[in-house]
Amino acid sequence: MAKATPASSSPVSPLRIGLIGFGTVGSAVARILSESALSGLELTMIANRDVARKRVEWVSSSVHWTENVDELLAPEAPADLVVELVGGLEPAGEWVRRALTAGKSVVTANKKLIAFHGPELEALAREHSCQLLFGAAVAGGIPVIPGIEHGLSGDRITRVEGILNGTCNFILSAMESGAEYATVLADAQRRGYAEADPSEDVCGWDARAKLAILMRLAMRIHVAPETIEARPITAVSAVDFAYAAELDCTIRQIARAEQTGVGVAAVVGPMLVPRRSPLAWSTGTENMVVTTGQFGGEVVFSGHGAGGHPTAVAVVSDLVNLAHGLGRAPGAFRAEPVSVEPEVPHYIRFLVRDRPGIVAAIAQALAAEGINLNAILQKPGCCAESLPFVVTVEPCRASALRRAVEAIAQMDFLLEPPLEMQIVEK
Amino acid sequence: MAKATPASSSPVSPLRIGLIGFGTVGSAVARILSESALSGLELTMIANRDVARKRVEWVSSSVHWTENVDELLAPEAPADLVVELVGGLEPAGEWVRRALTAGKSVVTANKKLIAFHGPELEALAREHSCQLLFGAAVAGGIPVIPGIEHGLSGDRITRVEGILNGTCNFILSAMESGAEYATVLADAQRRGYAEADPSEDVCGWDARAKLAILMRLAMRIHVAPETIEARPITAVSAVDFAYAAELDCTIRQIARAEQTGVGVAAVVGPMLVPRRSPLAWSTGTENMVVTTGQFGGEVVFSGHGAGGHPTAVAVVSDLVNLAHGLGRAPGAFRAEPVSVEPEVPHYIRFLVRDRPGIVAAIAQALAAEGINLNAILQKPGCCAESLPFVVTVEPCRASALRRAVEAIAQMDFLLEPPLEMQIVEK
Repeated sequence: MAKATPASSSPVSPLRIGLIGFGTVGSAVARILSESALSGLELTMIANRDVARKRVEWVSSSVHWTENVDELLAPEAPADLVVELVGGLEPAGEWVRRALTAGKSVVTANKKLIAFHGPELEALAREHSCQLLFGAAVAGGIPVIPGIEHGLSGDRITRVEGILNGTCNFILSAMESGAEYATVLADAQRRGYAEADPSEDVCGWDARAKLAILMRLAMRIHVAPETIEARPITAVSAVDFAYAAELDCTIRQIARAEQTGVGVAAVVGPMLVPRRSPLAWSTGTENMVVTTGQFGGEVVFSGHGAGGHPTAVAVVSDLVNLAHGLGRAPGAFRAEPVSVEPEVPHYIRFLVRDRPGIVAAIAQALAAEGINLNAILQKPGCCAESLPFVVTVEPCRASALRRAVEAIAQMDFLLEPPLEMQIVEK
Repeated sequence: MAKATPASSSPVSPLRIGLIGFGTVGSAVARILSESALSGLELTMIANRDVARKRVEWVSSSVHWTENVDELLAPEAPADLVVELVGGLEPAGEWVRRALTAGKSVVTANKKLIAFHGPELEALAREHSCQLLFGAAVAGGIPVIPGIEHGLSGDRITRVEGILNGTCNFILSAMESGAEYATVLADAQRRGYAEADPSEDVCGWDARAKLAILMRLAMRIHVAPETIEARPITAVSAVDFAYAAELDCTIRQIARAEQTGVGVAAVVGPMLVPRRSPLAWSTGTENMVVTTGQFGGEVVFSGHGAGGHPTAVAVVSDLVNLAHGLGRAPGAFRAEPVSVEPEVPHYIRFLVRDRPGIVAAIAQALAAEGINLNAILQKPGCCAESLPFVVTVEPCRASALRRAVEAIAQMDFLLEPPLEMQIVEK
């Protein structure tokens, strides 16, 4: 019988922490550990490139700084566990494997590593009787992962959806007030919210890695992150927000996965979100996750999904758990491909040179794929030479719609490829 | 050194569960345990009054039903842990004490017991090397307690506020559309959302017990629940919603605690909430908790705070944790009285027989307490014989305002006592 015993409130000696990566999150972790003096935890080593430039005075003088990760990972190093905050698949993956193989628990915020190699690394941790914790890997400072693992394990979660990328949410919520994508992206880059190459964020690759992690923890389904369709937000324009407002919606990058009777659906991309939906609440760099359970219904988690300090809170909370002997429960899951396209209503925006017969041609192309037109929206005051207008269609499969839109894209009245987005039903 | 070791994924024999209380939540717990067949958990005993009437066919025939709680609590009973879902201080408290003293872990949804006796019962659990889990005691199906304990322990939480009573939220959000309190209360009673005697809910006693629990877990401050000021929602009227709308607010029963530099503030009561605040999002019987941390900022948890199945999800999640050997970390806290009144803006609604000089008299009474008047709102179309109007005042202490309002209440133009409410600043 597995019997829970209370963890001791005063461990004999504290857990010695070796920190790899002293960037925004790493320095915030060190800051919290220094300021809060949490019992049972002691920062002993910090590894970072160019350590002379990184070294700060407020870290205790007893901490050993090194440029050499091997020194931190050495079996005799004064580090009982390793915090990995470098990110990316390699060399972070190799470091995490070495730590786990040496029986040292690892705390990481590395969503990419966990999305792609989580199951393998968890098995390695089990094999070597240590723990792999990654509460910071999804939605930073929002306790979604501990909430799901410790508070919703009694439910059967059938859907997970959310706003998992703060950069996209910053861009799209700034576009609500009429700005164009390129302007807002430049502003986000100036503020440090977006990388010089923003592809990872705006193309949805970051969000789908996080969605894959949530699917494994909440829905107990493991999918290869790259098999989740990710559509970029780059084609969304100010005019789309104007039309979305007419539909009482806004636009957000939504990550969405669902377990239906016939299979698994998962997609990331810009979507129309009704203003009354919780998903419309998040602005700026905030994140949000909504889970739907068979027994408990919808649960909403929201807050600061990124940033040094919020992410560091999740890392330090994992450390506190380890100090109290509280790890993660072994989570059973099954590998399953993304196999289902849910039938959902869509929004399609066209930019055309106006002439008679356009609506008829579009309606015909949609009908050829069995798609029913729902509404046609056209704001007054646009010139016939470059006329944006919007069609909404009744629930249909994304692939059928895409075939119809590809056929329409060949038509001579179009000035640019149409933009289609799912409409979230709530 | 405290070192986390991974829990075994296949315990040798399952935890045998003795369930006390087969009401709405208890039967939902049994339902989930029956349907989900969670590994490591086995329902073996159910105790309830009038068991013949309660017995259901869908519970496994191997479960032993009894009317006698003593039988379930006997040392030799086939129950390794006890789930207490009866509620109230006694006899539930005695049963929980007996189970813990016998070294049997307890899972309970009993907010009153945990608010009033949590520290004593936790000490008892520690003494007897077992666990006391109560994830369902606050906000039912929303994993606020596990989120705070496992995901925010790395932060220093300075404020907790929320909507902790579904009955009041149902009543107040229904009143938004113009209905009066008495009508909506009767509807809530018909639907089973409110008790025949609704005092526990509408007077704020239920919410303050939950607030006391959250304060202990999140802010690490233990206050006696009865020392938290609780103001009833009973005096809120449809006209208050009309005036609140003019201030771009709605009205909710808010529970709010804050740790300031000089002490602890805590209060429960109807308050004006800006429409843009997360606290305005919850409608119907939903609950919401917003924590504010020094490092991670605001985190919002929302969902179904009550009801059989959502609450049962929290209970079963606690059972899953125990089956995996994951208990609660010992939480340090200090006893501290509620000692501070934050200075906040207020709303005061008067019902008067109109005559010249009323505003002057009110302004004078407020000025005598050093309170600055902010705005005067008076909707057109009311008759002078029974004229409601509203005054908002700049941030002041509730006690100073109350003295001013008591002075005003003596004035001859008043038709009923004024109603004052805090305005939540966001």
